[in-house]
Amino acid sequence: MSTASTPNYTELTGFYTRLYRYHHLAAIAGWDRNAMMPPKGNEARAAAEAELNALIHRTRTDPRLKELLRAAEQEPLDELARANLREIRRDWRDANALPEALVEAKTLAGARCEHAWRSQRPANDWKGFLENFREVVRLAREEAQLLAADTGLTPYDALMDRFEPGVRAADIERIFDDVKQWLPDLITRTQAKQAGDKVIVPVGPFPVAAQRALNTEVMTLLGFDFDAGRLDESTHPFSGGVPEDVRLTTRYHEGDFTRSLLGTIHETGHARYEQNLPRPWLTQPVGIARSYGIHESQSLSFEMQLARSRACTGLLAPRLKKHFGDQPAFDADNLYRLWTRVRPGLIRVDADEVTYPAHVILRFEIERALIEGAIEPDDIPALWDEKMQALLGLDTRGNYKDGCLQDVHWTEGAFGYFPSYTLGAMYAAQWFATIRRQVPDLDLRIAGGDLKPVFDWMDANIWSQASLWETPELVRRASGEALNPEHFRRHLESRYQGKLTRSMSRGWLR
Amino acid sequence: MSTASTPNYTELTGFYTRLYRYHHLAAIAGWDRNAMMPPKGNEARAAAEAELNALIHRTRTDPRLKELLRAAEQEPLDELARANLREIRRDWRDANALPEALVEAKTLAGARCEHAWRSQRPANDWKGFLENFREVVRLAREEAQLLAADTGLTPYDALMDRFEPGVRAADIERIFDDVKQWLPDLITRTQAKQAGDKVIVPVGPFPVAAQRALNTEVMTLLGFDFDAGRLDESTHPFSGGVPEDVRLTTRYHEGDFTRSLLGTIHETGHARYEQNLPRPWLTQPVGIARSYGIHESQSLSFEMQLARSRACTGLLAPRLKKHFGDQPAFDADNLYRLWTRVRPGLIRVDADEVTYPAHVILRFEIERALIEGAIEPDDIPALWDEKMQALLGLDTRGNYKDGCLQDVHWTEGAFGYFPSYTLGAMYAAQWFATIRRQVPDLDLRIAGGDLKPVFDWMDANIWSQASLWETPELVRRASGEALNPEHFRRHLESRYQGKLTRSMSRGWLR
Repeated sequence: MSTASTPNYTELTGFYTRLYRYHHLAAIAGWDRNAMMPPKGNEARAAAEAELNALIHRTRTDPRLKELLRAAEQEPLDELARANLREIRRDWRDANALPEALVEAKTLAGARCEHAWRSQRPANDWKGFLENFREVVRLAREEAQLLAADTGLTPYDALMDRFEPGVRAADIERIFDDVKQWLPDLITRTQAKQAGDKVIVPVGPFPVAAQRALNTEVMTLLGFDFDAGRLDESTHPFSGGVPEDVRLTTRYHEGDFTRSLLGTIHETGHARYEQNLPRPWLTQPVGIARSYGIHESQSLSFEMQLARSRACTGLLAPRLKKHFGDQPAFDADNLYRLWTRVRPGLIRVDADEVTYPAHVILRFEIERALIEGAIEPDDIPALWDEKMQALLGLDTRGNYKDGCLQDVHWTEGAFGYFPSYTLGAMYAAQWFATIRRQVPDLDLRIAGGDLKPVFDWMDANIWSQASLWETPELVRRASGEALNPEHFRRHLESRYQGKLTRSMSRGWLR
Repeated sequence: MSTASTPNYTELTGFYTRLYRYHHLAAIAGWDRNAMMPPKGNEARAAAEAELNALIHRTRTDPRLKELLRAAEQEPLDELARANLREIRRDWRDANALPEALVEAKTLAGARCEHAWRSQRPANDWKGFLENFREVVRLAREEAQLLAADTGLTPYDALMDRFEPGVRAADIERIFDDVKQWLPDLITRTQAKQAGDKVIVPVGPFPVAAQRALNTEVMTLLGFDFDAGRLDESTHPFSGGVPEDVRLTTRYHEGDFTRSLLGTIHETGHARYEQNLPRPWLTQPVGIARSYGIHESQSLSFEMQLARSRACTGLLAPRLKKHFGDQPAFDADNLYRLWTRVRPGLIRVDADEVTYPAHVILRFEIERALIEGAIEPDDIPALWDEKMQALLGLDTRGNYKDGCLQDVHWTEGAFGYFPSYTLGAMYAAQWFATIRRQVPDLDLRIAGGDLKPVFDWMDANIWSQASLWETPELVRRASGEALNPEHFRRHLESRYQGKLTRSMSRGWLR
């Protein structure tokens, strides 16, 4: 495409190239703050990062952009440029839809609520929390109304569209209603089935240096490019950096290696997506990873579909023995039983693969009603109790700290985010169902250490596509159909109800 | 000072606060590039850093600054603000004195010359080097002429003023002429005196983990604040970061701990200056460290005046034994002999404390003549040979790679920088002469592990003063006189000709 015939589009891409570089600096400064910075560096860093954020905001809201966008949309653009322009408009709308005063009020109310929550949660102080939270909800509703007016979506859809472009609450409701039909029964059956299982727990200590070496070896096995990224340590593990230089962090406990190992595998899924985004598009919005749900589909493909499969525990077992010495718990069958144990619990982040969707469905239903004004903040605890009882059979009455006070998301006004977690799990199951159709002996190849079929498929269908398509179109192109929760159900039925670990000798390992 | 009566000055400080934050981001991105970044991150990082540098340049050359400066100079400012305004004008002049085209041509020519030099130096290819170097010199002369016209200084003074504000080549010539009178003889006498010394060389390997622990312990002894800084590793050790968060790096060789230990002590001197700059001034040019020479006076105070003194080797010896196990070389007297060994050599960066000034004097005389047009690039090798013979008695004829091709400075057009190294050594000697007058039992206190008198003096006289005074005034206020090379001579005579290690029992340890 010649740039002479598309002067406005070309100027727009210049803006976004500059923004890409500013974001690079922000990513590295943020990574450093979390992984490297000593405590007394904090104040100056906060000022420097705020200055950079103000600069980014000024660039995204430059008055010239509005006319450039309008003019670029009249220019003769190819498909890639048109997709990029769509993403530029999405970003521009994101930056410009809300009046400055609302953004500031939201930031302030969110920060106040989140800060107080840190002590209110351990104190089980729902009443105290409500005082700040009402204002957070009020502003989130105002935000949703404005975004809705701007996009023509419903208010909750408008919030969710920032995390899952193109996905609507009606779709999610349909999908989650389906899940609600079969999940409680599956949980009950799985608990009954696992009741007699003998599971041996690994015995520590597991020295930090050995854990670090193990994680590094497993990341290499999973294709992480250490010439384009690092693994470090931080109090709150995260995946940061930039696509050209991905920075993962983990946290080591000498008494338990599993959390760090599986967490690192999870982050490696995010990392490979970033490391394999198409290089020529990187400076533009079309080159960004598609969405939170698609990103989560990568981390959960690595953690749930791969690492916790029987084929993979067979690959990991000898590596555990190599780094920690042998012990009975490192038997591949035992590791598989250990890592697929199902136990309904109150806390989302500690939930296993089977019960996790229940935590998300509950949150989705509550936050959607909250944004649409069908309920008020005061109504949350009763709804929470009712849904936890219905979905997981657990009583949370009066236990706010392990109930509706457990997550940070709402405190900061991040509504519309939770569905992405379970969408990610469902996409991952759908990807693996598709790969299995194309590579019938997939599990045998994985068991033999050959992960290439998975990586090749991800690269061709997800990584290389970046933001070329909106989420539903990406899903159709990758798997031949829309998001279909049946793949997720089959994955869970097969893993948790099949007698599949016994059939290794017959070459089918799932 | 009310800001209402100084609107222009106040607006200027706003510009510089913003610049301070941009520089923070640049410092962290630069540190990360050198100490952390994997190789494939380089291209995107270079683009991001270039974008930031362009932003910094645009800010420093904002057309509004000229009028703000002029107007601020008419406002009722206190002494601190006036000093800040002087430094702002210096920075503004630095950024605006040169036409954009010249800056670009200089950068380009310097990069080309430096890049080719990397292979020309090992190939001893002076002729090839000259082809690029002539253009570097031509542009440096043009730069010096423009800066001279702008400042009213001579061309070489105008270059040097950027590194040593207020110091003039005539002063340096007078000082260096003095040094030339006594240095060659001192070198000869010291070599003769040391000829019979028995020096035991430490025997490795010295594991990296033990070296790291030793360095950390010694940095703590020297007052480095690990809550406001870090020690990491990089191929080329450097001191980076920001005053609130100083990032040192070193490089470990298992066969030799001395280089990393003394290098780290040297960098700790730089670091303590930065860590103790006055907090309320930090965002402004007046809060920056005074000059390259004053900075070097801190690193050399720590490395030469402190670490290599007999009092300090006594402090370090037990720490070496603790981390590496005992061996005969770790005797405090032996360490002192080892670290004060004088050997004339061809390479500046490997030179000892006594012969080092010869390397600098030679470079100063040549580069000054070069900038002033008294000589041409072709004349350098003959002058180099002549001066090396006169000052150190060494023959460098035909050996360009260990002669005039050895340093990176000239290849990049950094003329006027070399004097700072020896000025730093002289300031350091002058500081310690002053401290000794005020604290007569200084060496005994150091030997007892009490370094507080040194730190207190540095804090009161150097660190807390930042850029409040130009260099000559800072020197007078700190030591009661102008820079006086006699202190440096006395230090060298005392350390290298005194029989001082024998007099420990009489309580005088220098």
